[in-house]
Amino acid sequence: MTAVTVFDAYGTLFDPHGLTERLETAFPGRGRAISVSWRHAQLRYTWLRSLMGRWAPFDVVTADALRWACDVHGVDPDDEMIDAMMEAYRSLPAYPDVGPALEALPGPLAILSNGSHPMLQAACNAAGISDQIQVVLSSDHVSVYKPDPRIYRLVPDRFGVTADEVRFVSGNGWDCAGAAAVGFDVIHVSRGSEPPERLGAGSPPTIVDLRDLV
Amino acid sequence: MTAVTVFDAYGTLFDPHGLTERLETAFPGRGRAISVSWRHAQLRYTWLRSLMGRWAPFDVVTADALRWACDVHGVDPDDEMIDAMMEAYRSLPAYPDVGPALEALPGPLAILSNGSHPMLQAACNAAGISDQIQVVLSSDHVSVYKPDPRIYRLVPDRFGVTADEVRFVSGNGWDCAGAAAVGFDVIHVSRGSEPPERLGAGSPPTIVDLRDLV
Repeated sequence: MTAVTVFDAYGTLFDPHGLTERLETAFPGRGRAISVSWRHAQLRYTWLRSLMGRWAPFDVVTADALRWACDVHGVDPDDEMIDAMMEAYRSLPAYPDVGPALEALPGPLAILSNGSHPMLQAACNAAGISDQIQVVLSSDHVSVYKPDPRIYRLVPDRFGVTADEVRFVSGNGWDCAGAAAVGFDVIHVSRGSEPPERLGAGSPPTIVDLRDLV
Repeated sequence: MTAVTVFDAYGTLFDPHGLTERLETAFPGRGRAISVSWRHAQLRYTWLRSLMGRWAPFDVVTADALRWACDVHGVDPDDEMIDAMMEAYRSLPAYPDVGPALEALPGPLAILSNGSHPMLQAACNAAGISDQIQVVLSSDHVSVYKPDPRIYRLVPDRFGVTADEVRFVSGNGWDCAGAAAVGFDVIHVSRGSEPPERLGAGSPPTIVDLRDLV
């Protein structure tokens, strides 16, 4: 019995590769490659910092990851360029199914994300979905990133429900595995062509459009 | 004052891409790409499983990662092929500087690795360095992977020394960051062209050949 539907943010509602064109304009011929390396480093840094007990806010991790991606691809952005990309990250495009799906779904609807609270609020405002999302839960509250169980437990704690009453939707396979490990009812929304992760957690039901939740 | 010199194993003593030719023979045109995806997935799975509290032995994680890498590149190995690659992983080649460096270094010398104890012993035997390595410390002992502080603390516990008396050598930048976070005296040995990780831990001294330790 679903009491609340909770969405991951980046890679689920918002496209983390939505700045590829801007990167391509700044670094011709390398935009896509930098975007891919940026996203991989961003995730890697969330996992490594969580394991090391050296949490830093998601905007710091994301800027560090962008700098690393630029290092990898041999480009050397100045601080202004990094700041401009980080500002643009606050209004990443939503996937096209997001608006119509959130309009049609029964609430309460929430976000549970590694993102910092100001980043998530800004992205919701930019995408015009602030009115549909009643609660935004962030790694800011626990100073640890997914898939540490402590961040997922924010949801049952906030809504006063059991884990199996939480319907959790993510486009990130490893996030689905982390949510399944704490007992959420998990649905994977496919946002790319990556095969399922092999983390010993089985495979959740997969949809290709959030409107299929309705 | 160094009381013990400790080496990471995969990416430091043993080349995790040492099976590229075998992969290329099995999957023509895709050997290198599969090897790279395999290594990335192997590390990702160690971090994710540690965060989820769902540790599995390194040979299980490594086989799961190989299957995922094959999924990504659209090849479908049978169980025999996976078993053969995992058997070959037990005798990964050592980098050419390893034997001469270990011969010349004052002991005690140890390994601290994510690898399971049998995998590490087999790799040391195959590389002919078992006599130089006095102690092998493995994630088996703590059921968690690097860079969780608990695995690094195996070294001072085992040798009865303080963290700053441990000289720790790794080819993996994130491993260097994890070791620095517990207070080891860290040296990075460069085994490739990846730029330094940006994990807020500064950059350790870097060498390009383990004989530079002598």
